[in-house]
Amino acid sequence: MDISLTAEFAEILFTHTPTDKERDAARRGIQDFLASTLPVFYGSLPDEGKQAVLDSFPAVKSVENTALRLGYLSHALDYDDYHAAFRGHPSTVILSSLFPLSFALGRYRVDDFLDAYIIGVEVAGRLGRAIGTRHYGMGLHSTATLGPIAATAACCRWLKLSREQTQIALGLAATQSSGLRAQFGSATKPLHSGFAARSAVNSVQLAMVNFPGQENGVLESFLNVFGYHAEQPRQLLADWAMPWRIIEPGLEFKRYPTCGGTHSAAEAAFVLRQRCVELGVDDLYTAITRIEVSFPPGADTAPNICCPVDGVQARFSLEYVIVDALVNGHLALKHYTAIPVDSTLRSFAARVKRCPDFSAPADELDPDRRFHRVTLFLSDGQQISHCVTRQETAAIYTDVEEKLALSLTLLPPSIAEQFSATITLDSSEELEQLASLLCS
Amino acid sequence: MDISLTAEFAEILFTHTPTDKERDAARRGIQDFLASTLPVFYGSLPDEGKQAVLDSFPAVKSVENTALRLGYLSHALDYDDYHAAFRGHPSTVILSSLFPLSFALGRYRVDDFLDAYIIGVEVAGRLGRAIGTRHYGMGLHSTATLGPIAATAACCRWLKLSREQTQIALGLAATQSSGLRAQFGSATKPLHSGFAARSAVNSVQLAMVNFPGQENGVLESFLNVFGYHAEQPRQLLADWAMPWRIIEPGLEFKRYPTCGGTHSAAEAAFVLRQRCVELGVDDLYTAITRIEVSFPPGADTAPNICCPVDGVQARFSLEYVIVDALVNGHLALKHYTAIPVDSTLRSFAARVKRCPDFSAPADELDPDRRFHRVTLFLSDGQQISHCVTRQETAAIYTDVEEKLALSLTLLPPSIAEQFSATITLDSSEELEQLASLLCS
Repeated sequence: MDISLTAEFAEILFTHTPTDKERDAARRGIQDFLASTLPVFYGSLPDEGKQAVLDSFPAVKSVENTALRLGYLSHALDYDDYHAAFRGHPSTVILSSLFPLSFALGRYRVDDFLDAYIIGVEVAGRLGRAIGTRHYGMGLHSTATLGPIAATAACCRWLKLSREQTQIALGLAATQSSGLRAQFGSATKPLHSGFAARSAVNSVQLAMVNFPGQENGVLESFLNVFGYHAEQPRQLLADWAMPWRIIEPGLEFKRYPTCGGTHSAAEAAFVLRQRCVELGVDDLYTAITRIEVSFPPGADTAPNICCPVDGVQARFSLEYVIVDALVNGHLALKHYTAIPVDSTLRSFAARVKRCPDFSAPADELDPDRRFHRVTLFLSDGQQISHCVTRQETAAIYTDVEEKLALSLTLLPPSIAEQFSATITLDSSEELEQLASLLCS
Repeated sequence: MDISLTAEFAEILFTHTPTDKERDAARRGIQDFLASTLPVFYGSLPDEGKQAVLDSFPAVKSVENTALRLGYLSHALDYDDYHAAFRGHPSTVILSSLFPLSFALGRYRVDDFLDAYIIGVEVAGRLGRAIGTRHYGMGLHSTATLGPIAATAACCRWLKLSREQTQIALGLAATQSSGLRAQFGSATKPLHSGFAARSAVNSVQLAMVNFPGQENGVLESFLNVFGYHAEQPRQLLADWAMPWRIIEPGLEFKRYPTCGGTHSAAEAAFVLRQRCVELGVDDLYTAITRIEVSFPPGADTAPNICCPVDGVQARFSLEYVIVDALVNGHLALKHYTAIPVDSTLRSFAARVKRCPDFSAPADELDPDRRFHRVTLFLSDGQQISHCVTRQETAAIYTDVEEKLALSLTLLPPSIAEQFSATITLDSSEELEQLASLLCS
């Protein structure tokens, strides 16, 4: 019998060892995870769903609930990393599965932990390619649907499961895959990450006690059922780790606390804000009669909320983000939380019109070619316009250490200090302390 | 704004009151649930996955894990009821959600409980129509994917959630929907039912503490994403309760412990067995050189295992079921559990050939028109053939009381006695005792 895709995949998870270069990238990923998690984790920023999640999923003696809570908390701000090939947020699911299992099992070998995380990101990027271009566009939330499989792969590597156990765990993860984009703009979006981490933990736990799930065929079926005829199963394995997906295209660390699909538009708005200053325009509300934003057709699928009511919805509002960037010159973390939006900005946002550029190729065919062109129509008849591509946005370095340092300033100093002591993550003791802070 | 489908749906869950006729049907459903659950629940029959499930999901103080375990145990034998419009097993998911919530909250008004169950079956049947004809065929397991929504609807009715809470709960259930048929033939199939019950309980619990999920649009997206262009959203509401789906087409109670898609074939084999007796054939192994089974194209999607290794796989083997029925004249519950299959029957099963009848309409277009024609080719050159339709199989009355009585004989007498005392379910005390037996 030919070896199955699942069997080949389970094999390759164990055959490659990352180098220091990838491990350094993984350390940055963990710092970004902390920067995105801790302000909600410690209640420094408001969050509407947190209390219900904590009440409904008590963590005492429950690895799966610890994972679920961490998944929720690390994605609650939607400020965590993004991977273009995955078309979603890998670290929130992968690390929210790895930390609780490490803590529960007392496993703290730091290089092995980093390698497992790197494998998880590798799988995330590959799954995004393998599932193809229609999955996300159909309405599925990749973080939620592909995340459990990536996290399960990472945990299998971390816990050194047998090949058979790994195959069973992958099948269990694939059959639990779920999550609809229709929940975007609500607290269910981060809950998806929590459910995904729980699914991964459950899949691994069941496989470890030899639950007799199918060893073959489930991952294959998953790609077929959820690929909508655009799946490319061989992409799961081709050129594995050459280069590692944590390096190329790499994790993208958000500089703004809004949906990744708004960032180029915000950066175009920053440039236009400067132009307005140069033109001597001081009252933007009076001077700008309307605003157009153009992009490849379908590129506004994720940030699809036109009239946000609160900061959580505003994360997914292309219109609101553009006017916030124009007026304030930055996107403040605290504006994009569970508080009402600024009513002046909201009425200004009503002047923004979405104008898909039908001369550009459809976004789902190649999200990497995305751009946002923002055009301001001034009351004196002038038009000024600026375009920023996704590639340009992604190429700008994000100072993750600074991002984390800023988040730590929001915490009680004694807690911030404990985290500061762990963040170089160059020893197993630091990993143990970090896991304990996050999971106990 | 037009009222959304989700809002209309949440409303209608509360507007109709079943009569004694439906409640009697519900009581039969609960008896069948017990008949299918108790032999594994009490370890009277072996099950490969049970211990791993019990170990991985401790029930102490966890309503969701109690639901998960009950979902698993009630579907482990695959002997539980089927609903043709749902194309799956409704009661395992619905009752595994209702009983633990009742027990946890101390709610035991028996008529309200039965009504909630009836509503759950109503929703299950309607969801099957609304999701359309491609969902199952694409590879999804309706019990797992549609079950959480049906069970959530039942629980919302039972716990009298507000309309807004109900809408949120339905959206949470829809976004957790998952389960691939690729897991059929393994213990993950019943685990799907467990996950489905857990999802329903989680959805209801979160909505009860006002978790801010989306109130609208998620169920709509669910039908679109998982309908593969065959969805019919209005079927969710049209002619609600006229007649109730628990009456028409009604719950089908299995007379055989195998996949529903094998039953007409087994009944055709029973008839042919009698013919062989009449023809004076006594050694079937020698007399029958080959066997053909024909059916509408695609009707063998579920029972797709040709060469089963154990009784769990044999449930899904059209070939094995046919020869077991021919040789033994009945399908014994204990043969279809986690024990190796009979090797003589297995080699006999290799003589069965599947011959889809391409003159019949594709099964997915109308599974109600399914039939199985079994033809025996005898060594003396004779052919004998018999055809049984799904409608004929479904029309035969299943004596659920006898089925339950048989299951109870497998239990320790003192336990059987306690269950016997609850099964008329005509008082809240009986419901309380039954919930306590199942959930404590």
